[in-house]
Amino acid sequence: MNQGSGPRRTAEILDATLRLLAERGFEKLTIEGVAERSGVNKTTIYRWWPSKAALLGAALIDAPMLRFPVPDTGSLHGDLAALARSLSRLLTEPPTAPLIAAALGAATHNAELASYTKAFFADRLAGELPIFERAAARGDLPDGADPMLIMDALAGAVWVRVLLRQLPIEPGFAENLATLVHPAAR
Amino acid sequence: MNQGSGPRRTAEILDATLRLLAERGFEKLTIEGVAERSGVNKTTIYRWWPSKAALLGAALIDAPMLRFPVPDTGSLHGDLAALARSLSRLLTEPPTAPLIAAALGAATHNAELASYTKAFFADRLAGELPIFERAAARGDLPDGADPMLIMDALAGAVWVRVLLRQLPIEPGFAENLATLVHPAAR
Repeated sequence: MNQGSGPRRTAEILDATLRLLAERGFEKLTIEGVAERSGVNKTTIYRWWPSKAALLGAALIDAPMLRFPVPDTGSLHGDLAALARSLSRLLTEPPTAPLIAAALGAATHNAELASYTKAFFADRLAGELPIFERAAARGDLPDGADPMLIMDALAGAVWVRVLLRQLPIEPGFAENLATLVHPAAR
Repeated sequence: MNQGSGPRRTAEILDATLRLLAERGFEKLTIEGVAERSGVNKTTIYRWWPSKAALLGAALIDAPMLRFPVPDTGSLHGDLAALARSLSRLLTEPPTAPLIAAALGAATHNAELASYTKAFFADRLAGELPIFERAAARGDLPDGADPMLIMDALAGAVWVRVLLRQLPIEPGFAENLATLVHPAAR
């Protein structure tokens, strides 16, 4: 949460934005609707976020419900499996699953929103880098390993299984995926 | 192409469907528009595909522009890298890139279309399984390796890099990704 980067009741405004997105979709999301749901005057919201794409972009990056603790299990395999489990939950369980599907769908045909989702994924990767720094310090990450590529494969597998194949996440999926994309065994 | 599973000029109808999707998006895709573009009477199209989701589902599975040859390079690493390169091209180059983004966006909020995209990904995985059967026969795939999980990580990494991170596919990406998700080194 960026203290000081929004009006009072920023948390309520951003939470209302995400819940209305999940309920109505991006087309029917309006700043007026967010004002009504959060109890904040719409001119206040417009002053801070000049468009609904800007408001949704801020909501995606700051929303507590889309954050999970960066794992520190003591091994890279354990940390990767924990990330896969957290992401699986975000993509399959309410309230986050419908919200993420709606944001993804909207970003595919709204260039302004796409620029905010790009910033969202860059922000998340920056938050995950300490996992790889700790692994390197332990000797658990070979020279030349590429943290972004590992995260692409790890996160991408969860996205493909849930959103493209539309199949359930089975027991052992996170551990097997962590084993597959862990580069240290080479 | 399923010979005999559609009217004469099926190829033109399905091609027109995909091009109109890329140009207009799913909301503005209509069977009337497909009839006009393909020069086929709309009642003929409705007789075979009762909804635009059904028509688009057929178009996605049968469209030649969304197919690529299943690679047979002589090694699993070579085949995986070839798949990553083909998928990277589909997701980044016209005419397929805007079409795939539009289909993905539409499938996130249309349950009927989502059932067709699910069938699409199952069809593609079935087509890719011979890669893994040949690798197993060569001793290039360890017992217990999971072809679907490998394809999830391989394809997912390309989807994440292009559509979520919105970053370019750099030289060496396909080879490095194939190395990361190749299970035989363990």
